Amino acid sequence: MITTDILIIGAGPTGLFTVFEAGLLKLKCHLIDALPIPGGQCAEIYPKKPIYDIPGFPDVLAGDLVDNLMKQIEPFEPTFTLGERAETITKLEDGSFIVTTNKGTKHHAPIVAIAGGLGSFEPRKPQLEELSKFEDKGVEYIIKDPEIYRDKRVVIAGGGDSALDWSIFLADVASEVTLIHRRNEFRGALDSVEKVQELKNLGKINLITPAEVKGILGEDHVTGVAIEKKGEDPFIVDTDHFIPLFGLSPKLGPIGDWGLEIEKNAIKVDNTLDYQTNIPGIYAIGDVNTYPGKLKLILCGFHEATLMCQSAYKRIFPDKKYVMKYTTVGGVEGFDGTKKQAPKAIVKAIV
Amino acid sequence: MITTDILIIGAGPTGLFTVFEAGLLKLKCHLIDALPIPGGQCAEIYPKKPIYDIPGFPDVLAGDLVDNLMKQIEPFEPTFTLGERAETITKLEDGSFIVTTNKGTKHHAPIVAIAGGLGSFEPRKPQLEELSKFEDKGVEYIIKDPEIYRDKRVVIAGGGDSALDWSIFLADVASEVTLIHRRNEFRGALDSVEKVQELKNLGKINLITPAEVKGILGEDHVTGVAIEKKGEDPFIVDTDHFIPLFGLSPKLGPIGDWGLEIEKNAIKVDNTLDYQTNIPGIYAIGDVNTYPGKLKLILCGFHEATLMCQSAYKRIFPDKKYVMKYTTVGGVEGFDGTKKQAPKAIVKAIV
Ligand SMILES: Cc1cc2nc3c(=O)[nH]c(=O)nc-3n(C[C@H](O)[C@H](O)[C@H](O)COP(=O)(O)OP(=O)(O)OC[C@H]3O[C@@H](n4cnc5c(N)ncnc54)[C@H](O)[C@@H]3O)c2cc1C
Ligand SMILES: Cc1cc2nc3c(=O)[nH]c(=O)nc-3n(C[C@H](O)[C@H](O)[C@H](O)COP(=O)(O)OP(=O)(O)OC[C@H]3O[C@@H](n4cnc5c(N)ncnc54)[C@H](O)[C@@H]3O)c2cc1C
Repeated sequence: MITTDILIIGAGPTGLFTVFEAGLLKLKCHLIDALPIPGGQCAEIYPKKPIYDIPGFPDVLAGDLVDNLMKQIEPFEPTFTLGERAETITKLEDGSFIVTTNKGTKHHAPIVAIAGGLGSFEPRKPQLEELSKFEDKGVEYIIKDPEIYRDKRVVIAGGGDSALDWSIFLADVASEVTLIHRRNEFRGALDSVEKVQELKNLGKINLITPAEVKGILGEDHVTGVAIEKKGEDPFIVDTDHFIPLFGLSPKLGPIGDWGLEIEKNAIKVDNTLDYQTNIPGIYAIGDVNTYPGKLKLILCGFHEATLMCQSAYKRIFPDKKYVMKYTTVGGVEGFDGTKKQAPKAIVKAIV
Repeated sequence: MITTDILIIGAGPTGLFTVFEAGLLKLKCHLIDALPIPGGQCAEIYPKKPIYDIPGFPDVLAGDLVDNLMKQIEPFEPTFTLGERAETITKLEDGSFIVTTNKGTKHHAPIVAIAGGLGSFEPRKPQLEELSKFEDKGVEYIIKDPEIYRDKRVVIAGGGDSALDWSIFLADVASEVTLIHRRNEFRGALDSVEKVQELKNLGKINLITPAEVKGILGEDHVTGVAIEKKGEDPFIVDTDHFIPLFGLSPKLGPIGDWGLEIEKNAIKVDNTLDYQTNIPGIYAIGDVNTYPGKLKLILCGFHEATLMCQSAYKRIFPDKKYVMKYTTVGGVEGFDGTKKQAPKAIVKAIV
């Protein structure tokens, strides 16, 4: 059982910044995310695109924003359950919660902060009967650790940035990379498209278009895929892995059944005070919540997280009086023993 | 008469970021500030100190944050009335407002956003009878343009960072710099104290401590100050300027009499929607407002400014339907003709 002060569901920008504000209040955080990496939409959908409306950044790449947030929260030593979906929640008699993931990992905390964005990122899967049988046995929808493909044969399917970028990356890792797409045209950054063209010309990527995977072969593990190319007879490509990269789409999913008030596919919260849901002790912040005038913007999630942490503190320590200190004045004391602090003014005679 | 869409009172971080959010909605802003420079508390009180809780910045000097915000809003060509205090407001029949400063400058706008922080920064003045007679005639409390002191004699009074830093700066500009403080000890950055000691040793700063200015001499303009040094007879130092730098302190001031609901020296707003005050068309955002759970933090001002601009837009264009576009998707179109935009994905065949 993982225990913490604030259990955060969703490691997007909102969830990440919550760690910082909680840390200032000496509260520890653990984050659960269905994605294998932190960053939410910024990391999954547009890591290489600039955002222009983060206050103080005339522009910042979404991926860099995530990196900056990770660096900012480092002193507060957040811990993570990644690649797992929060599935069920149980309220204990003392008012605390147990959250269990689809893989059975259990988390216990007095406060749950749902920062689930548009929902848990779930892969779009091709329609193939034998697919589920081979999941984690050669079929992967998300590349968590590219090293597992070293010197293996891989077939990647897809026509967007993920398919392009991973084909390029794995061309140097795998023994054989085959890229399959149902059109001749790919959609992505110019760089990536050109690089794949180059690797194809060099024979380092085996390109099959327009084509589709129609079947998976193997006993305990993938050994090949059956491919249908337009106007040709079906054929088989031997492979150790089949990686359909058709994008991830967010689904509110199981959280929708937790007894929370839902409106427009989002969780209704009390914006007049602390972004608490209808279940005391459960908050919803960032894109996942809704209230009158709500804007699904990153900077709004930051504000909501900050107010939420104050409320969580009062819930955990109803009798303590917290006096807020500016970070500039009080500094930042990490749980890791680090201390950041503004240089103090000195008082000194000039003679 | 200066006319604009949103008239912002206060050019602190909240007022500055408002220009950006308004600009995305194609609304023009003009800012009024009592200080001669933008930046509010960040610029006046702690420009060289790091802030640790601006989301995405593990640390950022307050002065750099202001510079970044100025750069971020540049495409929206904000205009400024600096060094003047917003004094009176009149509501016209059509619901728009005229705001007049202490120097008589008039501004007209359909929307007023008060981002006045802890109030208008006003200098702390020494208790000297003839002081007001010499204001702008050799007595200055804020240094707006150091060039006016070139080859002039100046007497600076004060024992903090401002007095130290301006003594250092003017040592190279003025023909003579005298620094007077009522104690021997100065309070400031180590660097500054050491630099003043060095300039004093070199004879470039004339130091008189512990001492106080007790009188000002002159007819139409300052010609000297009378100084009392502990245990010595009073004496006169000839000078062209007397600059008491005893700090600026914020005063809510005239805004307190505008008919707005005031609570704890702040303006009550409707935090359930748009941070509007009890007078429709007047909003209050950032440190200057109050509502249940309010935190006087920079990141909260950013959020409040953003929601406020949406409401202002609806007030100005009640019939237009605004569809929000992410900056990453829609880009940023400046009023100056610039356009920032994420590189578009391309669709291209690989053959
Ligand atoms: C193309 C694009 C451009 C954008 N441009 C801008 C912009 O310019 N400015 C701006 O402010 N915003 C922009 N946005 C929106 C911005 O990305 C979101 O507002 C922001 O990501 C919300 O952050 P969040 O942390 O609330 O949620 P998210 O970033 O959505 O993160 C939520 C995380 O929670 C996880 N999760 C959800 N449910 C579960 C569960 N049950 N178990 C485990 N994990 C779960 C998800 O997997 C996800 O990683 C843009 C979005 C897109 C798609
Ligand atoms: C030493 C110190 C350290 C701090 N550290 C932090 C920190 O670490 N993190 C954090 O988030 N916050 C911190 N703060 C607080 C932060 O600076 C404020 O929250 C922020 O400046 C508020 O911004 P604002 O734009 O709302 O108001 P302000 O910055 O106060 O700006 C308001 C401006 O309005 C002007 N004004 C007011 N009334 C009038 C009028 N009638 N006419 C003309 N001009 C007027 C004032 O002159 C002023 O320039 C700190 C503050 C101090 C003093």
